[in-house]
Amino acid sequence: MADHSTHVAGIGNAIVDVLVHADDLLLHKLGLAKGVMTLIDADQAETIYAQLPPGIECSGGSAANTIVGIAGLGGRAAYMGKVRDDQLGQVFRHDIRSSGVRFDTPAATGGPSTARCFVLVTPDAQRTMLTYLGACVDFGPDDIDGTVIGNAAVTYLEGYLYDPPAAKQAFQQAAAIAHDAGKMVSLSLSDPFCVDRHRDAFLDLVSGHVDILFANEAELCSLYRTESFDDAIRNVRGHCKVAAVTRGALGSVVATDEDVHVVGADTVAQVVDTTGAGDLYAAGFLFGFTQGRDLPICAMLGGIAAGEIISHFGARPEHPLRELARAKLGANTFENM
Amino acid sequence: MADHSTHVAGIGNAIVDVLVHADDLLLHKLGLAKGVMTLIDADQAETIYAQLPPGIECSGGSAANTIVGIAGLGGRAAYMGKVRDDQLGQVFRHDIRSSGVRFDTPAATGGPSTARCFVLVTPDAQRTMLTYLGACVDFGPDDIDGTVIGNAAVTYLEGYLYDPPAAKQAFQQAAAIAHDAGKMVSLSLSDPFCVDRHRDAFLDLVSGHVDILFANEAELCSLYRTESFDDAIRNVRGHCKVAAVTRGALGSVVATDEDVHVVGADTVAQVVDTTGAGDLYAAGFLFGFTQGRDLPICAMLGGIAAGEIISHFGARPEHPLRELARAKLGANTFENM
Repeated sequence: MADHSTHVAGIGNAIVDVLVHADDLLLHKLGLAKGVMTLIDADQAETIYAQLPPGIECSGGSAANTIVGIAGLGGRAAYMGKVRDDQLGQVFRHDIRSSGVRFDTPAATGGPSTARCFVLVTPDAQRTMLTYLGACVDFGPDDIDGTVIGNAAVTYLEGYLYDPPAAKQAFQQAAAIAHDAGKMVSLSLSDPFCVDRHRDAFLDLVSGHVDILFANEAELCSLYRTESFDDAIRNVRGHCKVAAVTRGALGSVVATDEDVHVVGADTVAQVVDTTGAGDLYAAGFLFGFTQGRDLPICAMLGGIAAGEIISHFGARPEHPLRELARAKLGANTFENM
Repeated sequence: MADHSTHVAGIGNAIVDVLVHADDLLLHKLGLAKGVMTLIDADQAETIYAQLPPGIECSGGSAANTIVGIAGLGGRAAYMGKVRDDQLGQVFRHDIRSSGVRFDTPAATGGPSTARCFVLVTPDAQRTMLTYLGACVDFGPDDIDGTVIGNAAVTYLEGYLYDPPAAKQAFQQAAAIAHDAGKMVSLSLSDPFCVDRHRDAFLDLVSGHVDILFANEAELCSLYRTESFDDAIRNVRGHCKVAAVTRGALGSVVATDEDVHVVGADTVAQVVDTTGAGDLYAAGFLFGFTQGRDLPICAMLGGIAAGEIISHFGARPEHPLRELARAKLGANTFENM
């Protein structure tokens, strides 16, 4: 039965993105700092929506994007997250399942509607996000499927889970189940301000319970309250087995106790929208990792998946990731993955 | 007050599109003929959705796309159509209003959900559509705002309105109000199979009540049951004041009693998705027409708007149409529009 188990089980806030084009003037008018994720309530969501240009709706959610990417690369992937039994919830469920991901978390039958994230994409391809958590606040320990977690090589958790209180408990429970089963736990720091909101808890987690940490440069620096990337890398080594840190066009750095790998970014003809870049980097990395590949190959796979996602609007892949990775890495390297 | 009246008032089925990439195999599996619009019921919608890959949601509806295009070119535009008070209805209302269109039709508070159209886009950029009419069946004569229609230079109606029975009555009422006020009525034939379903009614309309007819080659040939484009053009001349007939990459033909203009298509670097090509042609044409421009200029404006829409996924403009038209036609020609 072992070969039928899951490579990666992801847990996160189940969100539908509303993607809109915006300029710096609109960000200024809404009082938003570029590149940041801000939490908003239902009233704010309505007020802000009224000020936004026409959009397109697309399934999102940080860990969900990662898990869909892993399935697209050919990994066996499962997801847990809470939607409501409304139209956007149906959209989320359809999209993740039709991507080949196992997703069985029951929809909430009452309470807030399915979560929405307004993603404002500026002409410089940066995204600024406003998240209404909606039904995500109803995700709790009861929604953790222990059998799936216990059979997954890696359980992947997004830092954003620390925002809805019950999800934080679910997060801790999932991590405990994974470790009791001798499996690995991976955390994505999600956002520098998310790190700011939950720094002590994250420091605790990283040093005690996280095997594979994902962060970008700003998030890692925020975690260790330093402005020096080098200091941040020095700090994280030894705190967790593997830290994979992305640096945009500079590629990524993978740090372990023994080694530091510096891997270049994939070349992209035109960067259209950076939404999901970190999510898809984690997808490529974890796919390689659960296939037993060396860390530099994992980082290259991360770069390839991130390169696909930033070349178009939206945070779910538009091109078959497995074919793309095979073409970029060569059939030989990709064989048996 | 005259200069504050509406240039074009559109009436149509208010629909949210679910755009998915598909291949010929999937069309075959679903038993669909490429390029056609098929009506489906709620059960079929559910069954088919389960077989579709992940999608993106985007406001659509034939006449709504046209009206949004007119607003984007700088015209004063209004729309009437029925959504429900659900999430997709909110999306439709937000998108059309934030495009600068007046849209006041009250949402249905009960009954079927907001209409959805599955748009399957094949690698050859053709689109095959499956429409669940949902709340559109609740659009009726009471939803016609006579003041708006009476003050609009042109009332624009999509042929698809003949599918929900009460909308057909609303259609006829709107046309009567427009003519009583001395204004013009425009009809788009929508789809060859829509023409097939309602041929006699359309023939009646075109010869008696339509001032400006929009059709593509296949629709016009279907209307007059001929395989010869030339015959179809001969038939339509005299049946209505102006017939603007699109022929894809061949451009369009504008026929009146006095004259026939043959106008080339706009050049497009890459055709990605032809969804909305006819809708946006009508937008450009009607914008020019209501600005008092000569018919060949109207046809060129139609080609420019259609060229924008087929260069990307989805049937709502992604680039500012007014700037595009000014760049293509030259500031002099565009002046005072």
